[in-house]
Amino acid sequence: MSVVLPGIEQIRDAAARIAPYAVVTPVLRSARLDALVGAELHFKCENLQRGGAFKFRGACNAVWSLDDEQAARGVVTHSSGNHGNALAMAAATRGIPAHVVVPEGAVRAKLEAIEQAGAVLHRCAPTQAAREAAAAEVQQQTGAELVHPYADARVMAGQGTLVLELMRQVEALDALITPIGGGGLASGCAIAAHGIDPTLVMYGAEPAGADDAARSLARGARIESLQAETICDGLRTLIGEPNFAALRSHRTQVITVTDDETIAAMKLLWRELKLVVEVSSATVLAAVLKQREHFTGRRVGLVLTGGNVDLDALPW
Amino acid sequence: MSVVLPGIEQIRDAAARIAPYAVVTPVLRSARLDALVGAELHFKCENLQRGGAFKFRGACNAVWSLDDEQAARGVVTHSSGNHGNALAMAAATRGIPAHVVVPEGAVRAKLEAIEQAGAVLHRCAPTQAAREAAAAEVQQQTGAELVHPYADARVMAGQGTLVLELMRQVEALDALITPIGGGGLASGCAIAAHGIDPTLVMYGAEPAGADDAARSLARGARIESLQAETICDGLRTLIGEPNFAALRSHRTQVITVTDDETIAAMKLLWRELKLVVEVSSATVLAAVLKQREHFTGRRVGLVLTGGNVDLDALPW
Repeated sequence: MSVVLPGIEQIRDAAARIAPYAVVTPVLRSARLDALVGAELHFKCENLQRGGAFKFRGACNAVWSLDDEQAARGVVTHSSGNHGNALAMAAATRGIPAHVVVPEGAVRAKLEAIEQAGAVLHRCAPTQAAREAAAAEVQQQTGAELVHPYADARVMAGQGTLVLELMRQVEALDALITPIGGGGLASGCAIAAHGIDPTLVMYGAEPAGADDAARSLARGARIESLQAETICDGLRTLIGEPNFAALRSHRTQVITVTDDETIAAMKLLWRELKLVVEVSSATVLAAVLKQREHFTGRRVGLVLTGGNVDLDALPW
Repeated sequence: MSVVLPGIEQIRDAAARIAPYAVVTPVLRSARLDALVGAELHFKCENLQRGGAFKFRGACNAVWSLDDEQAARGVVTHSSGNHGNALAMAAATRGIPAHVVVPEGAVRAKLEAIEQAGAVLHRCAPTQAAREAAAAEVQQQTGAELVHPYADARVMAGQGTLVLELMRQVEALDALITPIGGGGLASGCAIAAHGIDPTLVMYGAEPAGADDAARSLARGARIESLQAETICDGLRTLIGEPNFAALRSHRTQVITVTDDETIAAMKLLWRELKLVVEVSSATVLAAVLKQREHFTGRRVGLVLTGGNVDLDALPW
């Protein structure tokens, strides 16, 4: 796949496009967490975004980027997680069909949420190849537009809008850290941040058990397969090609963290910020705690990506 | 005890007094919760207040109301919960001593937090009489000023400041609901709300197992003893005398809810608002869901009082 990266202008356009539908999420702070790190931490609360995750931004921008004719044929994606749900919700804001390809074995509650949002579910085998094939088939049958979860300029631009907000809410950030999965968020945020302030230092947090971005950056070429082993279900994805290119050109530094570190950070976020955040979201605090020497005395933005948690199966 | 109720002017003064120390807490909404009730729900997030509860407002106002000479002798209270912690934190903002009388058997983590905030702990037997006696003894020995958790005009005025904020954040509220324990919050909020808009309807939420305010209002006189049986540890207190007087004169309507209803509402708040709130806080949503006919089509403020939860002992 060959995807052109969005620029800051596309991100500004995206912000205007999604403004009627997306939430301007608050930025929260905690004196205790600041003290623990020795830095000024500003948490961008995308767990409070519509649908409970930043994914609504990208999906919404993609849906509202379509011309009327294309929109009428609907949208399709493959994701059993927040992106599938976000695309279903975004399509509903425009009153167009959404098709979501989900692997067998996906969590029932998540599938119900996607159906409730009005999407048609299409089951497939739980492999990347099967997902892509099934999505292609839906595309052929319906003419629906594929909205890839991360290797899509519209999606990256949408995710980047959170940085435009954050940099209005907090002046003079020194650094920004996001989790890295497929890299849609990390790349969109890097482009947005450097579009405003080229000196801002970009960090990514990655589970040690899915550290393909860290290894790809270290060897200067994208690793093309990954056996992910991490509790962070949102970050098991291999980083996308355009996303990797963006991380390289924006000199994103990746910090890897163990699942134990992430779970401890998750509990800290719940206790100190009083926020329900997903385990994937907690990688950013885990990373900042682990390599605090990067952040000491700095003003740091941390993106809390989502809050869709099974309250009956907490990881502690 | 004979306590004069604060007026709206005292609440405005309190707001100015605590402004340098307290958090202007956000107001959050949820389309799903709105749909569930058929009303416009605005959640005032005091779980995001300093110390994780609204109690910091009242304690901070009391601490900064003292003249320098009195302040130098410190403050004392009896509370093993959020008020004790709040008073310790408030005293720390002024650099004065705080004494907190705590009953034997209080939760260790809470006591540690109070000590960490810099207060001196004084143990006593776990009865109301023993608590009051121990506080009186500390007062005599140190000259510290007693800051009662709710039957104190400075405390009520401080709690009322959240309504001044809320009514700036949300226009034209029709109704406001708070939990009722000792009644410091409910009375301060009623005075503040009616000082701005006398037509606003005040509601209180009370656990069925500690429904002394409901029964006191029904019979027109304050019940003077209570065998509380509820999971809502913040609401087991008998309503205070001045607080009861305020609820009567402000025509506060009390809705009682079972612990099961409250736990279900707590889970809903965590899931839909992505907020960690205490079980006591969830009574307000439980009440609105239970008697939704009071609220249909209305714009309702709900005070989420606190977020200090033992994450290892959730009630579901």
